[in-house]
Amino acid sequence: MTTFASIADLRAACLDLPEPDASANEAVVRRQLQLTKPPGSLGRLEQVVAWLARWQGRSTPRLDRVDVLVFAGNHGVAARGISAYPAEVTGQMVANFADGGAAINQLARTVDANLRVTALALERPTADFTCESAMDEGDFLVAVAAGFEAVSPLADLVCLGEMGIGNTTAAAALAAALFGGDGAQWAGRGTGIDERGMARKRAVIDSALALHASRIGDPLLAAAAMGGRELAAILGAALAARQRRVPVVLDGFVCTAAAAPLRKLRSDGLDHALAGHVSAEAGHRALLRELGLKPLLDLDMRLGEGSGAAVAVLILRAALSCHCGMATFAEAGLSGKS
Amino acid sequence: MTTFASIADLRAACLDLPEPDASANEAVVRRQLQLTKPPGSLGRLEQVVAWLARWQGRSTPRLDRVDVLVFAGNHGVAARGISAYPAEVTGQMVANFADGGAAINQLARTVDANLRVTALALERPTADFTCESAMDEGDFLVAVAAGFEAVSPLADLVCLGEMGIGNTTAAAALAAALFGGDGAQWAGRGTGIDERGMARKRAVIDSALALHASRIGDPLLAAAAMGGRELAAILGAALAARQRRVPVVLDGFVCTAAAAPLRKLRSDGLDHALAGHVSAEAGHRALLRELGLKPLLDLDMRLGEGSGAAVAVLILRAALSCHCGMATFAEAGLSGKS
Repeated sequence: MTTFASIADLRAACLDLPEPDASANEAVVRRQLQLTKPPGSLGRLEQVVAWLARWQGRSTPRLDRVDVLVFAGNHGVAARGISAYPAEVTGQMVANFADGGAAINQLARTVDANLRVTALALERPTADFTCESAMDEGDFLVAVAAGFEAVSPLADLVCLGEMGIGNTTAAAALAAALFGGDGAQWAGRGTGIDERGMARKRAVIDSALALHASRIGDPLLAAAAMGGRELAAILGAALAARQRRVPVVLDGFVCTAAAAPLRKLRSDGLDHALAGHVSAEAGHRALLRELGLKPLLDLDMRLGEGSGAAVAVLILRAALSCHCGMATFAEAGLSGKS
Repeated sequence: MTTFASIADLRAACLDLPEPDASANEAVVRRQLQLTKPPGSLGRLEQVVAWLARWQGRSTPRLDRVDVLVFAGNHGVAARGISAYPAEVTGQMVANFADGGAAINQLARTVDANLRVTALALERPTADFTCESAMDEGDFLVAVAAGFEAVSPLADLVCLGEMGIGNTTAAAALAAALFGGDGAQWAGRGTGIDERGMARKRAVIDSALALHASRIGDPLLAAAAMGGRELAAILGAALAARQRRVPVVLDGFVCTAAAAPLRKLRSDGLDHALAGHVSAEAGHRALLRELGLKPLLDLDMRLGEGSGAAVAVLILRAALSCHCGMATFAEAGLSGKS
């Protein structure tokens, strides 16, 4: 069981990351130039295969085992009237995941992935971060470790997702802490809050930013102060995936904000992560831009649960099928460029 | 065997189209509001299921049988040096399709679709349309009928695609004829032509537009004069699909230009068609805008062969799996909005 003794210990782990495998990347690019198509004509399908190769460290990447890891947490700040749904929906949705009734159950099956849901102390919501730190150091590190442990080194790819009523508020506060701006810039409608709720949400974020101003300069302290357990777990999972050579597909706004501290700590800290999609949640597009991530899909989704990341796996599978199955010019006896 | 006696006969068929099934659409929307997710949070995944329902005429749409129809043709205008590849590549790629070595073979298998390739008189290229009409009326109608016949009423969805060295030049000329503009506006790099080739391509398009100026006002005459057999077949297939209640996924620039006359003849003439993606070919985004079609994917693909349309089928399958498999709020015992 991985544990982090302190935030300083976690920070050291986030700074000590493996590099991509340049020769695996090169092997993919070389093969792509020989396949029966104009060079580059499969666009991002070609790019994602090279990305898989360099982060798996395999000249021929594979997607035999894809894990969808969904983390759930409850938020003290939910009591502030910043969500369209009551806090008990987090636990109810975890039960729905177990019963196979949620969108992510259908999507995981469709993309042939294993769904693993980790509920993080739902009975003990984080503290209301407009009054105090959402988590103390110990609580934060336990959640990070839970995410870290959820990543199997046997997986070829992990999709990260979350469930937690109130967590777009936490994600917006964290995004503002990491990249500047305020509630007006980062708050979105979440599950579908009305205009009065939006006003409360913006105010909650601004008040948290003021309260935790001294922690904002440190990405990990900010994540502990204004994040949530499921966000901390996603951070841990993204870190473990890098260390274990498992490429990561990020989901929407919450998931991306949760992983963002890795990028703040090291400029290449999220190079092993693909933005599966850009969600309809207001801040996601701006957040991806800050992180230098170009989303694979743009389908106006805003559900969370890892749903957008799971759909993106379909594109990766299609890309890999072309890469592995197509004939070369030589095999097909095809004329080259005139 | 469907035949069209004249262009006037074909025009009449294009004007007499069935309407969408409003009650099937309504049934989908009603169910979506009951599923365990915030309303609308699956974004385009919800929209495409409603689209499938209203054009299949089924309250619960299905994708049991998906056909990918690829049409191939040769172009007299290819002799003008407007492609990066020699004209014989059209036939060589048809052989590659038969051998299973092309991208579309891998993609059709990945998306569980039937691939059917129709080679249209490859040994007899269309005439060079800078000198005369690409096809006479008879030739054009035979190609339209071939496409029409390729659509089975048993299919739940058809993807349309093409192969034909030189056909982005034909498509650009047709787009200019239908929507205005010139070679500079509509010509793209196709399979990857260099700057000198681009200059020739633009000049070829402008010269064709001047020669056929009297036909430009009529979408079908323009398609015969400046299109190609594979473009004509796509037009016929898109028409047959509407008549046979089979929704259509369009591929890239050539495919979209080929189907565009339906939209010019009737403002709802392509409502049964989904733009599977927007390709990297220069004119495609502008053409989709002219047609009021919002692409599902944007992956910088520019291969043709129906490849972008096939990848889009994956999104439709994911959407349908959520629609059919998810639990309702009542089934899951979930709390509604607070």
